[in-house]
Amino acid sequence: MIRQLNLSLPAFERGMHLITDIINNNLSDLPEVGMLNIFIKHTSASITLNENADPTVRSDFNNYINKLIPDNTPYFKHIDEGFDDMPSHIKHSMFGSSVTIPISDYKVNLGVWQGIYLLEFRNYSKPRNLVITIYS
Amino acid sequence: MIRQLNLSLPAFERGMHLITDIINNNLSDLPEVGMLNIFIKHTSASITLNENADPTVRSDFNNYINKLIPDNTPYFKHIDEGFDDMPSHIKHSMFGSSVTIPISDYKVNLGVWQGIYLLEFRNYSKPRNLVITIYS
Amino acid sequence: MIRQLNLSLPAFERGMHLITDIINNNLSDLPEVGMLNIFIKHTSASITLNENADPTVRSDFNNYINKLIPDNTPYFKHIDEGFDDMPSHIKHSMFGSSVTIPISDYKVNLGVWQGIYLLEFRNYSKPRNLVITIYS
Repeated sequence: MIRQLNLSLPAFERGMHLITDIINNNLSDLPEVGMLNIFIKHTSASITLNENADPTVRSDFNNYINKLIPDNTPYFKHIDEGFDDMPSHIKHSMFGSSVTIPISDYKVNLGVWQGIYLLEFRNYSKPRNLVITIYS
Repeated sequence: MIRQLNLSLPAFERGMHLITDIINNNLSDLPEVGMLNIFIKHTSASITLNENADPTVRSDFNNYINKLIPDNTPYFKHIDEGFDDMPSHIKHSMFGSSVTIPISDYKVNLGVWQGIYLLEFRNYSKPRNLVITIYS
Repeated sequence: MIRQLNLSLPAFERGMHLITDIINNNLSDLPEVGMLNIFIKHTSASITLNENADPTVRSDFNNYINKLIPDNTPYFKHIDEGFDDMPSHIKHSMFGSSVTIPISDYKVNLGVWQGIYLLEFRNYSKPRNLVITIYS
């Protein structure tokens, strides 16, 4: 059995945003055993899992990736949409377009400290479209 | 329902290569709702999604990752197959061995600007074997 | 058809550990065609695929990622659990929480040189819980 739903996230500012509750609130009647895939239809944002409790993880993460792939990288040519655009595309491939999570005992089977995150890489962001697929 | 096909890509030069059309041309009779997984059976190349329109994305991306993990990294010991070999293995884990994409309304449900890419990390490349799995 | 099993890996030291045999020894009666997902329920370790033969790949990989995201990064604030904690979380998102591998002809369809790895990012590690899902 497979089913899908579309979910549009509101625009979040550049950074790392915990969306576990938003995802869970949009799921219902999960199977006893299955898989959940959360896919983002954009190349300037990512979906990832990370530590769900300490807000400094999010600021440290964001500070690190912005130094690793700086907006002002002098040799980037893909700059028509802003200096944050090409770094966003590199981050997208580095952190990924989807996560796949087991469903066990009718629940999303994350570890105790795992949360689902939207990584928004753009300064002037917009709503982000997700496709959620549940199969069992 | 699940079905699989093998697809051998011809040797592409080191860099980022849009293969959305090659993939689509090898798919037929997609289910109304499902998932597509594209897996690469190698550790010196990756499959990823990224911006599908501007060629400078591809050159910027390639320039960035080659500076991030330089071929001449002095402390690498895995060099028997060339100075590009160990950087390729690191990039493989960084950018991944497969992508999973939803199938919706009988089509691969990519975002408007999303394309499927082969990342070829080796200087002297060879054909790359993919396994494509469709489940519904 | 979908089935799942839990697998607890013993504590491995910080580094890159080949676990292909451990995984295979815990699989039985694979379907003719299917998919295997291996998911780690932690945010300070990752599951990835990489070269399975030369031990210097593992030391080079580990040396590289520890220089890329150094434990002593001066601006990290998430340091209560040790200087290796925040770097571990960044590496988790960079290298991923799961791998999805095709099953073909009743076997896990890895390339000849592909192995399954646990990446342990913490100095004082602990057993790591995996969820393995097989669907067909």
